[in-house]
Amino acid sequence: MRTITGDLLLLRLGESSDGPMNQRLYRCLREAILDGSIAADTRLPASRDLAAELGIARNTVVHVYAQLQAEGYTRSRQGSGTYVADTLPDDYLASGRRARQVGARPAGPSLSVRGARIVDGASASPFQWGAFMPGVPDVTEFPHRKFSRIVSSIWRRPPAQLLTYAYGGGLPALREALAQHLALTRSIDCDPEQILLTEGVHQGIDLISRMLCEAGEVAWIENPGYWGARSVLQANGIRAVPRAVDEEGLHLPSEPVQAPPRLVFVTPSHQYPLGAVMSLARRRRLLALARQWGSWIIEDDYDSEFRFTGRPIPCLQGLESDAPVIYLGTFSKTMYPGLRLAYLVLPKRLVKAFQAAHAELYREGHLMTHAAVAAFISEGHYAAHVRRMRMLYGRRRAMLVNLIERRLGVDWLHRDSSDAGLHLVLDLPDEIPDEAVVQAAHARGVLTRPLSRYYDAAPQGGEPPRQGLLLGYACVPEADIARKFEVLLDSLAYVARQRKRP
Amino acid sequence: MRTITGDLLLLRLGESSDGPMNQRLYRCLREAILDGSIAADTRLPASRDLAAELGIARNTVVHVYAQLQAEGYTRSRQGSGTYVADTLPDDYLASGRRARQVGARPAGPSLSVRGARIVDGASASPFQWGAFMPGVPDVTEFPHRKFSRIVSSIWRRPPAQLLTYAYGGGLPALREALAQHLALTRSIDCDPEQILLTEGVHQGIDLISRMLCEAGEVAWIENPGYWGARSVLQANGIRAVPRAVDEEGLHLPSEPVQAPPRLVFVTPSHQYPLGAVMSLARRRRLLALARQWGSWIIEDDYDSEFRFTGRPIPCLQGLESDAPVIYLGTFSKTMYPGLRLAYLVLPKRLVKAFQAAHAELYREGHLMTHAAVAAFISEGHYAAHVRRMRMLYGRRRAMLVNLIERRLGVDWLHRDSSDAGLHLVLDLPDEIPDEAVVQAAHARGVLTRPLSRYYDAAPQGGEPPRQGLLLGYACVPEADIARKFEVLLDSLAYVARQRKRP
Repeated sequence: MRTITGDLLLLRLGESSDGPMNQRLYRCLREAILDGSIAADTRLPASRDLAAELGIARNTVVHVYAQLQAEGYTRSRQGSGTYVADTLPDDYLASGRRARQVGARPAGPSLSVRGARIVDGASASPFQWGAFMPGVPDVTEFPHRKFSRIVSSIWRRPPAQLLTYAYGGGLPALREALAQHLALTRSIDCDPEQILLTEGVHQGIDLISRMLCEAGEVAWIENPGYWGARSVLQANGIRAVPRAVDEEGLHLPSEPVQAPPRLVFVTPSHQYPLGAVMSLARRRRLLALARQWGSWIIEDDYDSEFRFTGRPIPCLQGLESDAPVIYLGTFSKTMYPGLRLAYLVLPKRLVKAFQAAHAELYREGHLMTHAAVAAFISEGHYAAHVRRMRMLYGRRRAMLVNLIERRLGVDWLHRDSSDAGLHLVLDLPDEIPDEAVVQAAHARGVLTRPLSRYYDAAPQGGEPPRQGLLLGYACVPEADIARKFEVLLDSLAYVARQRKRP
Repeated sequence: MRTITGDLLLLRLGESSDGPMNQRLYRCLREAILDGSIAADTRLPASRDLAAELGIARNTVVHVYAQLQAEGYTRSRQGSGTYVADTLPDDYLASGRRARQVGARPAGPSLSVRGARIVDGASASPFQWGAFMPGVPDVTEFPHRKFSRIVSSIWRRPPAQLLTYAYGGGLPALREALAQHLALTRSIDCDPEQILLTEGVHQGIDLISRMLCEAGEVAWIENPGYWGARSVLQANGIRAVPRAVDEEGLHLPSEPVQAPPRLVFVTPSHQYPLGAVMSLARRRRLLALARQWGSWIIEDDYDSEFRFTGRPIPCLQGLESDAPVIYLGTFSKTMYPGLRLAYLVLPKRLVKAFQAAHAELYREGHLMTHAAVAAFISEGHYAAHVRRMRMLYGRRRAMLVNLIERRLGVDWLHRDSSDAGLHLVLDLPDEIPDEAVVQAAHARGVLTRPLSRYYDAAPQGGEPPRQGLLLGYACVPEADIARKFEVLLDSLAYVARQRKRP
């Protein structure tokens, strides 16, 4: 199949011969867009087709498309490809004449291939507050007066040591308070020195990636799974291999594995995003396999504090002594996300090396914040707040489940949804694209996230992405739940109608 | 050359045949240390010799040595190699019997090669407060009551949007206040949207590394230079190539360069750590070369607020329009290091891609802190504090320079020391090793950092590391400077005496 764009580019690439192919293609495409040779709203050929026409690697085209999109020259439309933007980036409009000269170069070279991949695969949302944003706690319920009083009292006479750079994994007082709390609530067996406080869970995954895994080695991730873990692993050159999940959590192979993973990233307490709890049998088997393979398990326990019925299964870290597990916990859901405070629980033999590398790569500080959180825990406010929120989120979840059952039917609730966490998954019929529902709801003032986005774009075997919606109920006041849910139903009906049209 | 250790290991390696060579070697060495076959204080063979004896890659030995050192089985002595530690790591002493069984394995596999390298090359110090720690401002002079009042007032009614996750580079109010401040004080030409707030300067370097440079590509760094930049670049697989500095800053080649660097990391306002100010001619030439090569300049302007005489030269970012420069600034020196707040000033065409990648890789938050710092700037406290500290640090520097001139002689002050910053460099005669002076001073309660540590371990040509001391005067009250300096002189005399002994 020949395309007009392809013909044009073949011509221009012939005229431009300096630099590597990805830079030449980038320049030719950008200039063709800027000088109008490729008009606004033109659909660009699929990367595979253009690569075949030009006789170059498909990756080169994917990279250049991602670059153009990151810079605002193109935009992608759900399920229908990449289009030339109708409004071009500001800086080129402002200096239009210069940019229109053929061969004009932007200042500095373009993004790296790995940089373009990060942007291309980015899943973080610019919207982080409002019904039904998943993963967001109700920060308006945070006891801010109590916390602020603690903060003020520490600022009254701040010791110099709390204001300068830090070293060694964070304030000892917070790690002691946390070790006690984790022993009581999560059966975690650790000394305070095994805890390393991090700037959010992402920094913990970043540190683990670098310290325990070479570039090019394999990590298993859940599919669907947490986009952030995938992005951080990949940014470190690790091959994040998606593995299916079932009602017991990460599916484990029964056959011997040819190339075992170096890392296995799991969310056993509450599979993200589907909701399954990893069974005890699966946990034991995962631990046995990890020992056999010489792999590390990364246990992301992101919202286990919010289990509304029954008792939680002990975490992997505490299930067996000397387990090859690094436990990840966070204050984002139990206090507030903007605090950016999370932690690793490390096996003892890794502590010194991780402390040295953590200080080296990220430098440490935030000890004033650590002191405030330590006091917040020691004075009992933390446990009390978590208890209160557990009741509140449990009520909100029950309201939402009730609405789903009454207005849509019980089978719309995803089969693995467990009575826990800050969100649930609504299954959609395959013919209703979740991205379209998310957009329709957004236009009506309601936020959700499409389940299909949590699947790896290139699954190796296994089932195709399911359509569904992640609905966060934690940050929606009870008084709003029913009304916002009606808006969601409207959006669903709107998309269903659109799809029926010829 | 055959060594006893090599013979022993050849024997044991023959008995242990499972797993890759680095794991086998690690296990054999560790067991030989634990069961006493290699006694405490034994010097291990040089990695090159042992590799030759065993017929394996030298890198494997280097990696295993680094791993053992990270875990406390060995320690290195300055300039004389690696020794078996006399106190073994706690966890193995506690469970000595188990560990002493031959073949006992630690939980999980060992560090990655890149992880071991990070630990092995680590330069971050556990000590960050006290005379004469370089790079540390006087945090006891920070107007904490004013700042605390602002913090409290924001906590009184915290908007939900400030407590949840963030996206887009940080709070607009802070980026606006900062853009105004930078235009006035640093001739920086930018819109607020070009500013991206980061978790310290390290996060900014990390983001730049990933977005603009492939693994395996070259970045030029100053030699001597900032250890943190080198470590972060290397953690991203970038070849950090050390380049000499002279009295005009980074030395630039007059010959055409075969393989130009993708990134050039410089500290033009105040070369770190020697102190030269990059001349205007050198600045123009660096910009021209970067344009010619298609490289990016990373301009780390870490302490330019503290220039005691004369006017600063405009920063590279503002020297020419559309310059291929990413500017790095920080609040660590002007407010307090534990705040962990820094920023990039990006060229417009990179803004969207960097925002997306930043949210994706690190998640954003800290908007309550951003709001407080924005108010601190807008209400004039920031500029006033910087002005006051400039006077204070200027006085402290003058006192220290005066002491050096009177007690040692003017030629001990490094020739490129400029009248700026938070530290100065004291030159030592070649026969006095700076590491030894640092240790002697530390034993006497005075902190300094050895200049030789700031040189790349493997300089490609150029002069060998110089011996010297980085003396931070910013965090030392005037009343203490003379007394602490005497302690330093004692330490210097002590080391000089030790060296003279047979």
